[in-house]
Amino acid sequence: MIGMAVLGCGRIGRMHARNVARHSEARLVTVFDVNTEAAGGVAADLGVEPASSIQEVLTNPEVHGVLIASSTDTHVALIAAAVGAGKAVLCEKPIDLDVGRAQACWQEIASRSPRVMIGFNRRFDASFRALKQRIEAGEIGKPELLVITNRDPEPPAAEFLRHSGGMFHDFTIHDLDMARYLVGKIVEVQACGANLIDPAIGAIGDIDTCAVTLRAKSGALVQIANSRRCVYGYDQRIEVFGEGGMLRAENLRQTAVESWSDRHTAAQDVLLRFFFDRYREAYVAELDAFVSAVATGSRMSPDFADGMAALVLARAAGCSMASGRTEKLP
Amino acid sequence: MIGMAVLGCGRIGRMHARNVARHSEARLVTVFDVNTEAAGGVAADLGVEPASSIQEVLTNPEVHGVLIASSTDTHVALIAAAVGAGKAVLCEKPIDLDVGRAQACWQEIASRSPRVMIGFNRRFDASFRALKQRIEAGEIGKPELLVITNRDPEPPAAEFLRHSGGMFHDFTIHDLDMARYLVGKIVEVQACGANLIDPAIGAIGDIDTCAVTLRAKSGALVQIANSRRCVYGYDQRIEVFGEGGMLRAENLRQTAVESWSDRHTAAQDVLLRFFFDRYREAYVAELDAFVSAVATGSRMSPDFADGMAALVLARAAGCSMASGRTEKLP
Amino acid sequence: MIGMAVLGCGRIGRMHARNVARHSEARLVTVFDVNTEAAGGVAADLGVEPASSIQEVLTNPEVHGVLIASSTDTHVALIAAAVGAGKAVLCEKPIDLDVGRAQACWQEIASRSPRVMIGFNRRFDASFRALKQRIEAGEIGKPELLVITNRDPEPPAAEFLRHSGGMFHDFTIHDLDMARYLVGKIVEVQACGANLIDPAIGAIGDIDTCAVTLRAKSGALVQIANSRRCVYGYDQRIEVFGEGGMLRAENLRQTAVESWSDRHTAAQDVLLRFFFDRYREAYVAELDAFVSAVATGSRMSPDFADGMAALVLARAAGCSMASGRTEKLP
Amino acid sequence: MIGMAVLGCGRIGRMHARNVARHSEARLVTVFDVNTEAAGGVAADLGVEPASSIQEVLTNPEVHGVLIASSTDTHVALIAAAVGAGKAVLCEKPIDLDVGRAQACWQEIASRSPRVMIGFNRRFDASFRALKQRIEAGEIGKPELLVITNRDPEPPAAEFLRHSGGMFHDFTIHDLDMARYLVGKIVEVQACGANLIDPAIGAIGDIDTCAVTLRAKSGALVQIANSRRCVYGYDQRIEVFGEGGMLRAENLRQTAVESWSDRHTAAQDVLLRFFFDRYREAYVAELDAFVSAVATGSRMSPDFADGMAALVLARAAGCSMASGRTEKLP
Repeated sequence: MIGMAVLGCGRIGRMHARNVARHSEARLVTVFDVNTEAAGGVAADLGVEPASSIQEVLTNPEVHGVLIASSTDTHVALIAAAVGAGKAVLCEKPIDLDVGRAQACWQEIASRSPRVMIGFNRRFDASFRALKQRIEAGEIGKPELLVITNRDPEPPAAEFLRHSGGMFHDFTIHDLDMARYLVGKIVEVQACGANLIDPAIGAIGDIDTCAVTLRAKSGALVQIANSRRCVYGYDQRIEVFGEGGMLRAENLRQTAVESWSDRHTAAQDVLLRFFFDRYREAYVAELDAFVSAVATGSRMSPDFADGMAALVLARAAGCSMASGRTEKLP
Repeated sequence: MIGMAVLGCGRIGRMHARNVARHSEARLVTVFDVNTEAAGGVAADLGVEPASSIQEVLTNPEVHGVLIASSTDTHVALIAAAVGAGKAVLCEKPIDLDVGRAQACWQEIASRSPRVMIGFNRRFDASFRALKQRIEAGEIGKPELLVITNRDPEPPAAEFLRHSGGMFHDFTIHDLDMARYLVGKIVEVQACGANLIDPAIGAIGDIDTCAVTLRAKSGALVQIANSRRCVYGYDQRIEVFGEGGMLRAENLRQTAVESWSDRHTAAQDVLLRFFFDRYREAYVAELDAFVSAVATGSRMSPDFADGMAALVLARAAGCSMASGRTEKLP
Repeated sequence: MIGMAVLGCGRIGRMHARNVARHSEARLVTVFDVNTEAAGGVAADLGVEPASSIQEVLTNPEVHGVLIASSTDTHVALIAAAVGAGKAVLCEKPIDLDVGRAQACWQEIASRSPRVMIGFNRRFDASFRALKQRIEAGEIGKPELLVITNRDPEPPAAEFLRHSGGMFHDFTIHDLDMARYLVGKIVEVQACGANLIDPAIGAIGDIDTCAVTLRAKSGALVQIANSRRCVYGYDQRIEVFGEGGMLRAENLRQTAVESWSDRHTAAQDVLLRFFFDRYREAYVAELDAFVSAVATGSRMSPDFADGMAALVLARAAGCSMASGRTEKLP
Repeated sequence: MIGMAVLGCGRIGRMHARNVARHSEARLVTVFDVNTEAAGGVAADLGVEPASSIQEVLTNPEVHGVLIASSTDTHVALIAAAVGAGKAVLCEKPIDLDVGRAQACWQEIASRSPRVMIGFNRRFDASFRALKQRIEAGEIGKPELLVITNRDPEPPAAEFLRHSGGMFHDFTIHDLDMARYLVGKIVEVQACGANLIDPAIGAIGDIDTCAVTLRAKSGALVQIANSRRCVYGYDQRIEVFGEGGMLRAENLRQTAVESWSDRHTAAQDVLLRFFFDRYREAYVAELDAFVSAVATGSRMSPDFADGMAALVLARAAGCSMASGRTEKLP
């Protein structure tokens, strides 16, 4: 059994803590949050003692792995501390909003053979995973054109977004990582954004709709279509077109019921609205991968470098939007 | 060019006359209807002279083929007369409502090597035709279970149905023919009917909803699901399940547009409501087949025997519904 | 917490025991099987002590509910004993292969206000459940025609089927129950069966393919299409057609990936092959319903009378197939 | 009846001539091609006399409308001559490969109230037309993100492409026009191209795969995904996402048959491979629109300005790809 601690007991931390508690190969040792009430609630629910400090967590020999689900600005410090204490780390994306800080973190930990996995949960979705396996099996030959659609049901309040790092760092980063997952190294970024949904988002200098084009080293082109609002639910699709055909991952729905009426036919359910529901099994599979990597000592994936690469792409997208130029990546 | 005359200038006769007029290998020579106004209208539209009698049509040497689209009770007499005059015949289904009268007609014409095709238009639909070809090519091995769905948008007035011969003869007969087309000879019929839509239909002793099960000589079972009312349009589907897989002919729609809203996703158009629209190309392909058979002297299909067999099945369905017993066919 | 014991530690018993062990409101107290090795294995896996006799299970005051997953011929005795001991019962379908024995069981327990639920797991499937709710909400008006498709990936060995009670009791019974679930009381049955897949199944007097038509008291007609072999997986579909439209529950798949190649487009995954996978969540939801009914004292559903009614329909189907007549039910 | 002449008797000219000949409100008066054999063949097939010169066509008072289907480099001269002769014009896209020449043509004809329609056939496709109508009816509110997919089955020989003007002018121009059709004026273009399919195409300085992003004056972003090779057929899709939902025009297929096997389920036909087949009805509808505009004197659409605007966008795409910068349009 792998002993685990969860740092951060907000919405996503609670979900992770529950997954750890239910995992057959892992054991939830403790949880921590600066908000002691939040930590106490989760701990009580799951039958563990909350830790009174990070220090207590990191010195606990029963804790083999640390899951970091606290706010983004705490990630690099916690990664460094956990790696320093010899713990394996599963950290929510992004590593940080700033490429420089993330690089500094890496400088600090690089010599310690860090065992760090970054929580790009979508890589663990059964459909996206099947997509990758079937591409790699050669089913469609060399990928040439990808279209990644990612749309959230509703935008958060502009106030909440003020510290999010902007749409590319907070939202598009998932798709930037997905592009890398499916077609490897990206060498060019063109980004185009707009504020179409909520003027308050524009007022804080952010966008809520964007279209990003990437060129991979392999030659493939990738188009990303993002929106912060989607009335029919959480729209998550990927289409990979190649020399020998196309693979298309369509959306999931609650039921397989279709409706036929005097207004439409074969109408399906609206999509799941909440990312916890849509990626419920992906989060469990992500945890499986982490626990198994800790248990067997095998390579972590996606790792720190993957988290870093996505961050660099998000920054490049921001630069491209600002300058109107194609950003080239080394 | 094959010279053709159309007998009967009602709704379906007009459609056929137009198809003949536009056909590249056929020529519309004349039309006839006891309603001279109807005949005159069609003739004027299509630039031909209406005939003043059946006799005039049948003695016209320019007429090689006669298309019979008059009311059902006139079919056998017209078939006999046309065959007697040496004409090829394309007759709308059914041959007659009475098996005995149809048999008598056959007795009368059998010795003349009659060239008679019966208008089961659905056999000429591109999807149903592909279904048959793919079954015959062995794509799903031996067919085991068929489900044929046939539902009309709206029931005709009960008054109109009074002389229709009842649902099995007027409506289900298409599906009975389709079953024969796809799996060959039928040896057993079980029928179950209900009056669920319009009490006036029940009042004239007819039904408006039915479920019929057939057993083919090949062993395959066939289920037919019929309704006289279908709010989402003209529902025309066939599913053929076999030892090696399934082929399913789904419905056609006006456009390929899907709608995604806060109430549903991937909702498609309602179905075409009118059989002329749904089977527009099938009617043209049926005429092609007839014209080509006349031109080349090749076998007509579906022929008189096919029309007869469907009629026998419709009668058997009626008997089964009345008696509650499985009807066996010789 | 509801204390539960599982009787029968075969494939399905193990699955149920695991579900109980993981249930947040239930506790697995013990398991029993005449095959002590099987019982010991399950018990060890789930961290409980196996019981050494039924008696031990039924006298254990910690056991509030008994889940009967032993062979069909033991069901009635175990139901009676468990009810006699004051336990709530969740019994796998069917109650028995013989209507008379099932009735006798009821006679024996009726006076004790028995708390018995029968394991028609499909009633708990999210799609079929949504179907029922939407029908009841009036979305398609009065149901008129149902088509229930149920096909197993592969037939069991004929030897195994020898004691199964035949296809209607062993297989179609799920669809007979589903028909009752969706449209209520059934008043007529017509059945047609065939031995198309494995001659060995015919040799023991059973069938492997069937088409059954039901008439509900409400007027609705129901068509059931069953096969013991389906190369594309476990085919589970229901279509409910009504005066105001149609609801259609389509199949589930492992992923939402479609393939487009030079041979086909929009090709989806083959279906899940195993009923445990297809109905994984339904089995959990069934257990939820049972546990909740035990905890709150609310009505069990489906109950003994439902199990009985399905059995009576299976028997009627057998009689109809044998006689070629429509069977009427009181 | 509108008298029409077709200039250019290559593949597309023949198709247009046939459509004119079959049109109920138009009459094919004559055809012309510098290749007199080609002109003679078409004329003979359709029962008209070929013209011996453009002059003869333009001075024929029976000719009300001229359909220009000759090579692109002849378009502007023929438009000018036909307008000069007082004829209405339906000219295949593009007007010219060079914006300057097209502008000069406009200078020449502008004062004559020219009646010129440009053959962007896709605007007349039933699905795309429905898309536009439903957008305008407000079904999805304000459009925010469009994805236009356009992929040809196979690339032409590089040699053929040498004089095509390059992918944006020859291929993407359809999508650039479609974007304008659906969301109006375009103010920014970003283009990214690649040579992934045939090195010979790269060798002549052209691309075969591209991703183009547009920003409309309305605020909407448009993504275009093009490829010169698509093994599953001629892929023609449009997705319009808006504040209130999404409309998605999917592909058309030859039949509605699905295949279910041990390798896949619900697999549909490959797509129609040929643009004549895919847009057969659109070409007829385009001609209808032209004939009707000539007959009634109503506004032509798409008109010369539309053809010009698409050309300007194609040029901008080329500039953007070359410079790596976003091109702004006045």
